[in-house]
Amino acid sequence: MQALTFDNPLLTTYAIAAALTVLKVIGQGWITVAIMMRAHSGWAAPEDIRPGPLNPHPAPEQLAPHEGVERARRVHRNDLENIPAFWIAGFLFILTAPPLWLAQLALYGFVAARAGHFYAYATARSHELRATFYTIGTLLTAAMALYVIAVALV
Amino acid sequence: MQALTFDNPLLTTYAIAAALTVLKVIGQGWITVAIMMRAHSGWAAPEDIRPGPLNPHPAPEQLAPHEGVERARRVHRNDLENIPAFWIAGFLFILTAPPLWLAQLALYGFVAARAGHFYAYATARSHELRATFYTIGTLLTAAMALYVIAVALV
Amino acid sequence: MQALTFDNPLLTTYAIAAALTVLKVIGQGWITVAIMMRAHSGWAAPEDIRPGPLNPHPAPEQLAPHEGVERARRVHRNDLENIPAFWIAGFLFILTAPPLWLAQLALYGFVAARAGHFYAYATARSHELRATFYTIGTLLTAAMALYVIAVALV
Repeated sequence: MQALTFDNPLLTTYAIAAALTVLKVIGQGWITVAIMMRAHSGWAAPEDIRPGPLNPHPAPEQLAPHEGVERARRVHRNDLENIPAFWIAGFLFILTAPPLWLAQLALYGFVAARAGHFYAYATARSHELRATFYTIGTLLTAAMALYVIAVALV
Repeated sequence: MQALTFDNPLLTTYAIAAALTVLKVIGQGWITVAIMMRAHSGWAAPEDIRPGPLNPHPAPEQLAPHEGVERARRVHRNDLENIPAFWIAGFLFILTAPPLWLAQLALYGFVAARAGHFYAYATARSHELRATFYTIGTLLTAAMALYVIAVALV
Repeated sequence: MQALTFDNPLLTTYAIAAALTVLKVIGQGWITVAIMMRAHSGWAAPEDIRPGPLNPHPAPEQLAPHEGVERARRVHRNDLENIPAFWIAGFLFILTAPPLWLAQLALYGFVAARAGHFYAYATARSHELRATFYTIGTLLTAAMALYVIAVALV
């Protein structure tokens, strides 16, 4: 049995990869907010154009979509479509007691692929580059899920 | 090692906080549906304006956005951006065997912050109040993720 | 204590149900991409209409919403609203050591309900059919979460 303790290198590998991607998801929210605050635009809700400390000079057009904010939201949405699935697939994968090098390859490989995806999306690189990083992340997650099913069925 | 049993108070603290927020996420879907059914509007898909028991008097304008439904969807989206990250950060956090009071503070503090966020968003309180509750939740999640990385690396 | 090993049938039941739904979430992204590629339309970002191997003949209208792509995104969004909550509720549920038949009913029942939801949504069946499958999935998840809270509090 895999001991879920921090002297088990499979668990620490998983913990680092999962915690880094938690910070990515939470940080993406902060990035969206930062772009919104700088642009004074792209607010989410009608009440956000009431005057207040966050918005001393409100205007109705602040509720219109703002491309920088929309880009940050698209990145966030792509994170939500991919990262929670990785958290569960990765956790079940280390419970199968794979070789450490394979766990490191899959888990840190996913983190690297998502870092590449973030770079490509946030800086509007080509669709091809973004799609490549997205695809690597999804293949790693799907491979771990298939491996888990295979171990469970054998 | 943390025993993942319900006589371990770290596990029960996590289980209660995680299960309450599961009910929040699922319940938000039901809230969206309830508002939709009452407004006969804000339906998601073209097939929803075919006549049937759920919609005896269909009309094309039922597919237009309805502010109450859109508000419920914004709350739901914010939940999805924050709560799954909390589930993983909180689980890894209790595996580090923190003091019980610290785990209760972080985990129940997150639940309280999200309850406040829900109140502020659902009733259209000021952006400042909603942002305050959002920020508390994200700081607690990020702090747990950083703590996990620190324990894993030491 | 529940041993988190693959000779524990509660764990293998959970692992199979969770891994299948991981594949569903990741696969839904691939389905969206496949529809997009076939339609040459519904692209997500302005940079996707730069010429390149993925898009040799770009046109501005490729950024307009495309109903097939939008449908795939609605399915995906509904997955994200329901499946991660299931992953956590199901994991905590098996830690309570329920009878195996009950775990199989709840976990495989959820997988079957989501398969039905996917069929109903992807092929534009009636709102009533889609809502029925959605409701079954949410009731199973909520029941597991309530069961976990009850066990934790007793």
